[in-house]
Amino acid sequence: MAGTRVSCGLDYCNVYELSNSLQDASRAGYDFISVPLAHPRFTREHVEGKAKLRDGAFTRSDLLLSSSEWNSLIVGRVTTAAVLNLECGVSSLRLNSEETLAQELTFAAHLGLPALTIPLTTDRCVNLARIIHNKVVQGVCYQVWVRVPMQAPEESAGHYRSDKKVSEDGFEIDTWTWWNKFHSIANIQKKIGLMIEVSADLPDQSVVDRWLGEPIRCAVLPTSIWLTNKKGFPVLSRSHQLFVRSLNKLHAQFIISGPLRHQHYKFYQQYLEHITRMELDPLTDFARGYEDYLQCPLQPLMDNLESQTYEVFEKDPIKYEEYERAMFLAISDRVPEEERDTKEIVLMVVGAGRGPLVRRALAAAKRAQARLKVYAVEKNPNAVVTLQAQQDEDWGTKVTVVSCDMRDWDAPEKADILVSELLGSFGDNELSPECLDGAQKFLKEGGISIPYSYTSYLSPLQSPKLYNEIRNCREKDKHFLAHFETPYVVYLHNKKELAAPQPLFTFTHPNTDGVIDNKRYKALQFQITEDNVIHGLAGYFEAKLYKDVMLSIKPDTHSRGMFSWFPILFPLREPVPVRTGEIMEVQFWRSALDAHMTPDVRTFLNERQNSTYMTLDAHMTPDHEQDSLSGNLTDSYNTTWIDPDSQLCSTHF
Amino acid sequence: MAGTRVSCGLDYCNVYELSNSLQDASRAGYDFISVPLAHPRFTREHVEGKAKLRDGAFTRSDLLLSSSEWNSLIVGRVTTAAVLNLECGVSSLRLNSEETLAQELTFAAHLGLPALTIPLTTDRCVNLARIIHNKVVQGVCYQVWVRVPMQAPEESAGHYRSDKKVSEDGFEIDTWTWWNKFHSIANIQKKIGLMIEVSADLPDQSVVDRWLGEPIRCAVLPTSIWLTNKKGFPVLSRSHQLFVRSLNKLHAQFIISGPLRHQHYKFYQQYLEHITRMELDPLTDFARGYEDYLQCPLQPLMDNLESQTYEVFEKDPIKYEEYERAMFLAISDRVPEEERDTKEIVLMVVGAGRGPLVRRALAAAKRAQARLKVYAVEKNPNAVVTLQAQQDEDWGTKVTVVSCDMRDWDAPEKADILVSELLGSFGDNELSPECLDGAQKFLKEGGISIPYSYTSYLSPLQSPKLYNEIRNCREKDKHFLAHFETPYVVYLHNKKELAAPQPLFTFTHPNTDGVIDNKRYKALQFQITEDNVIHGLAGYFEAKLYKDVMLSIKPDTHSRGMFSWFPILFPLREPVPVRTGEIMEVQFWRSALDAHMTPDVRTFLNERQNSTYMTLDAHMTPDHEQDSLSGNLTDSYNTTWIDPDSQLCSTHF
Repeated sequence: MAGTRVSCGLDYCNVYELSNSLQDASRAGYDFISVPLAHPRFTREHVEGKAKLRDGAFTRSDLLLSSSEWNSLIVGRVTTAAVLNLECGVSSLRLNSEETLAQELTFAAHLGLPALTIPLTTDRCVNLARIIHNKVVQGVCYQVWVRVPMQAPEESAGHYRSDKKVSEDGFEIDTWTWWNKFHSIANIQKKIGLMIEVSADLPDQSVVDRWLGEPIRCAVLPTSIWLTNKKGFPVLSRSHQLFVRSLNKLHAQFIISGPLRHQHYKFYQQYLEHITRMELDPLTDFARGYEDYLQCPLQPLMDNLESQTYEVFEKDPIKYEEYERAMFLAISDRVPEEERDTKEIVLMVVGAGRGPLVRRALAAAKRAQARLKVYAVEKNPNAVVTLQAQQDEDWGTKVTVVSCDMRDWDAPEKADILVSELLGSFGDNELSPECLDGAQKFLKEGGISIPYSYTSYLSPLQSPKLYNEIRNCREKDKHFLAHFETPYVVYLHNKKELAAPQPLFTFTHPNTDGVIDNKRYKALQFQITEDNVIHGLAGYFEAKLYKDVMLSIKPDTHSRGMFSWFPILFPLREPVPVRTGEIMEVQFWRSALDAHMTPDVRTFLNERQNSTYMTLDAHMTPDHEQDSLSGNLTDSYNTTWIDPDSQLCSTHF
Repeated sequence: MAGTRVSCGLDYCNVYELSNSLQDASRAGYDFISVPLAHPRFTREHVEGKAKLRDGAFTRSDLLLSSSEWNSLIVGRVTTAAVLNLECGVSSLRLNSEETLAQELTFAAHLGLPALTIPLTTDRCVNLARIIHNKVVQGVCYQVWVRVPMQAPEESAGHYRSDKKVSEDGFEIDTWTWWNKFHSIANIQKKIGLMIEVSADLPDQSVVDRWLGEPIRCAVLPTSIWLTNKKGFPVLSRSHQLFVRSLNKLHAQFIISGPLRHQHYKFYQQYLEHITRMELDPLTDFARGYEDYLQCPLQPLMDNLESQTYEVFEKDPIKYEEYERAMFLAISDRVPEEERDTKEIVLMVVGAGRGPLVRRALAAAKRAQARLKVYAVEKNPNAVVTLQAQQDEDWGTKVTVVSCDMRDWDAPEKADILVSELLGSFGDNELSPECLDGAQKFLKEGGISIPYSYTSYLSPLQSPKLYNEIRNCREKDKHFLAHFETPYVVYLHNKKELAAPQPLFTFTHPNTDGVIDNKRYKALQFQITEDNVIHGLAGYFEAKLYKDVMLSIKPDTHSRGMFSWFPILFPLREPVPVRTGEIMEVQFWRSALDAHMTPDVRTFLNERQNSTYMTLDAHMTPDHEQDSLSGNLTDSYNTTWIDPDSQLCSTHF
């Protein structure tokens, strides 16, 4: 299936007749144009201390276009002069710059522009970030696209290739740090996005990936970085093509800037449209629209699932195939071939839902030519209606439908095989261990549990986008101040993983321990290999169904095409900056309550409080210094995320 | 322009093959079908005290349709048996009814149905209302359509025509009171709507209008009320047609129920589609999508308007025509014909915005063949850009642009004519009096103010829909607990006015009083002619521009086609029930602060605190009794809406 069409704008250095320029760009296939906010022939003079504006209008009239055109087709460019002296120590110059910027920001709001762009040319951007923050929190119609070059310009980057990140006069030449500082001080509002100016030579892949972890709203592709093919048309190098495709997956928009170097501007747009057409695999297709969209983890033990939820999960093209394969192997192993006519196998599906595993069990038995008796145990009375209807119409006596919580069921006989699908995105987080501990009393000695083992995995994540999504939840919903202490199920998209996932907790079934204890504790250490900021931890699982039949959502072993689970995200309350060479330590708890309660209370408490506690600790190597310019951010290195003793901080997952 | 297409469903008494029924209805042009939630062949048996459900499924399987079909095409009908004994004193019968209802409500949520219907057959509905309220506040996917007959069935309404509203056994036969009681107790949640079953004979228009003031989501048109035309096709009587069109304007959906009495069900749907096609006048067309949509009144003195806002208002087809006519007459009166070559008239537009009145003034002068000098005074620097550009390009020296607040301007000469457009939906609510009091110092003795007078109007309103919209604001936005003390600008739609609007406050300009005082107080009395509930007060204005040139948004004198102003709504914190024969008294204040402050503070305080206070008092006639069944509602007859001395309660408008 084709992805959505790329959105592409054309940058005008200056504009003489605005509506003509707009028409030209539209005819060349562009979706919008970028123009300066202040008309260049109206330069403004300010006098010391009090900014005095010249007589007459400082820019063109809003009557040149209709509101709907201003609202959707015009991106305003703040003039460089407006930000030039914002960080200047001479107060008259600084105030003049502030007045000029304020005038342009106000006029952009008057016009109702969808976006405006502001250039960032140095890491000295505290005043600019402060002003933009203040403007954005007041509520503005436009997005702010902060234009940052991917690499520092040559003149300031003389020593870049010698692996120093600071030029001789102390100028920071890793431009990501310019953006990161601006973004941190502007308090990473959702309205503020990155507009990256793509360089002719792309940096190392890990640096590219760090950019891709940022909320890129727009990418500038100057005409100077384009190549010319044999027929004279503009094309991009292979590495630029890959980068453009990655940007397109983030739904970034593009802007072509700079003087025309080929026959017509339309060819740049056509080429971009061409290379961003793509085929989607089943998972990506399924996940469209869910990118970075926060979902609360299901709590199927407490809340009954709805018909639609069952329907979606039953459509997974991989998961039930693998279950059937596992059941086929288990049935085959359980009955010697010569006994298949006589011996009946008892298989229990605990948490049968609307019956997908029942159907697969019957199919597996048929393939194995074995006699199978199935119990379908389900606690949701609405799903039981579906099971009963199928039993009436299809299954007959081969299947017994049991309307009951598996932990309370008094089984009439014991099972050879116990099949369940109780896993959450983090493996045990939907209380599979507790449920199966209860159900294993009706598994025969030596009987088989499918799955028989599962392990959760964790890795640290850079994602200002997700951090903002979570913060936004909190701001919208005053009842839930604990959004940062809640894990979310989310299709991770605009992010970078800063280290490979490491295994955390493993559970096996049946559990043969003398005293069953599902509490866990573990500390993980991650080696940090670049300067970056951590916004949360990504969680995955791997499960073993039977022998080598596996299900996995861990990226490197992901069951291809399986879409039943998105990863889980443990957000951090405050972003934690990290530096190359540091070790980051994460401590995780899985807590559990005792079972001396009535089933109802048990269910409720289990799901609400059977919690994971986490502390996070980034050990600094001794030779690292605090960065005084962004001290308010870096002094949070030692972040205790959650107090394990506090009830309030319990992470229910 | 055509309205949106009518949505029409078909009611199935029983269904044998659900997907076949759905296909049949779809082929006949219907958008959805209504079916019983519980399959009739699975009757349920309950035993005393504890409801025991029979073995096996109580209804059909969810696998019969896809989720998207359940979600959008099926309206579930709660079986009458489920609500039959809910109000019964025998607890085993009541509990059985409660269990049955609970089972059906839960299953409807499992299916994800868009709506379900519940019959209301009596005014004894407290337990039903309680259960539905509790369910809805927990959060449900479906809307609840409460099915109420427009008139009580014959058997219970034996004495209806003798003007008694209670049958001999004390049964309330005014069915509106059934619904009103249910709705009051269910706490009029937005998810709960009225499904009205249209009767063969329609009641008096005032009773019909009272129904139309309720949130009607759906109307049932039984086949028995349809007539047959000469060709044998089903048609509706003229009064039914009018009612159907009114329902369609409320975006109600329709359901055809009952046995087929013509060739095919499709003809009912086709007829409805035919009679609901309509032409819209400019105002209705402009207001589409804004029906009952709450907007905060503009505060143009404090907040600068945006380009788009100016653009919308400048498009009004009537307002500026009337202004030009007024200015033409004023200019003509001001200069005798013989002096028009020599005498120059000075006209000041105070609050010129982007210049629509300046353009109209120049046009009026041209028509009057008079020499005109215009000052365009505007405080919004962004709009001044537009004025300056027009001056540069078109107007030249005929117009002087003044970038200044009119209250602070030091005019170089005095004006013959002072023109402004500072009125809000309630006349003075955008502080026109205060602004013009400041500007009149540069009007010549005997000079003309356009407008020279304006009056606000009030009338009491029934509208549970708007009441809910306002309550919903409050629930979403914890910062603003004062939503019920804030007037809204809103295109009133799903409402009934309970009395004709009465004039409230009048202001005239120039104000020649010795001491100018814009404070006001007035009490209005409205005669109530029916049992109903008051949810708020509607506000309008009439303005006199010059001589008999008027602008009005009062319904009976509304300037036809003018869309610049929607009415204003003063909501009541609690709905106030009223009865036939009562007098409702409303007391209104307009408060003002003194002007001994700096202009900035003055502007802020004027707009934020220059307030109207209101108390509302419905005098009961002595022979009315409290209705003990809905005592929690009717004991609020004497509602003091706002304490005039309390700062918190100030209504800034």
